[in-house]
Amino acid sequence: MSAASNLLVRKLEVDDFGKGFLALLAQLTTVGRVNQDEFTGRWWELNDNPDYYIAVAEDTSKSQLLGTAALIIERKFIHSCGKVGHIEDVVVDEAARGHNLGHRLIDELVRVARQQGCYKVILDCAEHNIPFYEKCGLSRKEVQMVKYLDR
Amino acid sequence: MSAASNLLVRKLEVDDFGKGFLALLAQLTTVGRVNQDEFTGRWWELNDNPDYYIAVAEDTSKSQLLGTAALIIERKFIHSCGKVGHIEDVVVDEAARGHNLGHRLIDELVRVARQQGCYKVILDCAEHNIPFYEKCGLSRKEVQMVKYLDR
Repeated sequence: MSAASNLLVRKLEVDDFGKGFLALLAQLTTVGRVNQDEFTGRWWELNDNPDYYIAVAEDTSKSQLLGTAALIIERKFIHSCGKVGHIEDVVVDEAARGHNLGHRLIDELVRVARQQGCYKVILDCAEHNIPFYEKCGLSRKEVQMVKYLDR
Repeated sequence: MSAASNLLVRKLEVDDFGKGFLALLAQLTTVGRVNQDEFTGRWWELNDNPDYYIAVAEDTSKSQLLGTAALIIERKFIHSCGKVGHIEDVVVDEAARGHNLGHRLIDELVRVARQQGCYKVILDCAEHNIPFYEKCGLSRKEVQMVKYLDR
């Protein structure tokens, strides 16, 4: 990766389909078949929803995305009808790791969560990613449980 | 608790403010000051949003809520623009525990999540609640991290 001077952290835009957004997510997990229309449809749903913010990091010299992380804000009754930010789907391009990009993406989501009045942000991660999130200011709390559903 | 014949598991309604909804949540965590107008405002926000479903268990003979659990559905790009159900704020009245109510609430949320096309449901819990969620068909997966925000 070149120096960070060409790096822009911003909200996901609809033309990021052409800047490698799905290829980036494929480094994290199964993306499946998502064509441009499906991407665009989901993008509009999330862009119109004030409770979603998807951050990306772009190398503007190459119009190429190098990282992404998603924030979904949950509205609760507890904590005086408070809000909680859930951080999801954090990934940095393999070739761009070690340059603090992940940290910048998390900082961006924490900034948005705070601005939206969240009293906390939470995320689930693998054991080996705990040190990274600790550097981002998070602490280990509970245990994530999962149930996969047959559709 | 009386026999389960008077028990109804259903979606949260706006008049549940008067059936002990907030007192129930106060057995889980800090509720803070939430008056009837604030409850009603948040209720309308969530009731109009297809991505929220808050289940309650009511003892209909007493018009009293005995348990609640919330589902928030997250829309993703991964897994073919898939959806994930987040289960939050699960609590059963102290006097009504040991009667399978929590299990019925979780089953209800899993049913809704499946109906809405979620490919999985996830939740975070304390170590000592793992056996309960395992009985509900969930398995231990990752580690929850948290950051509390100054507002």
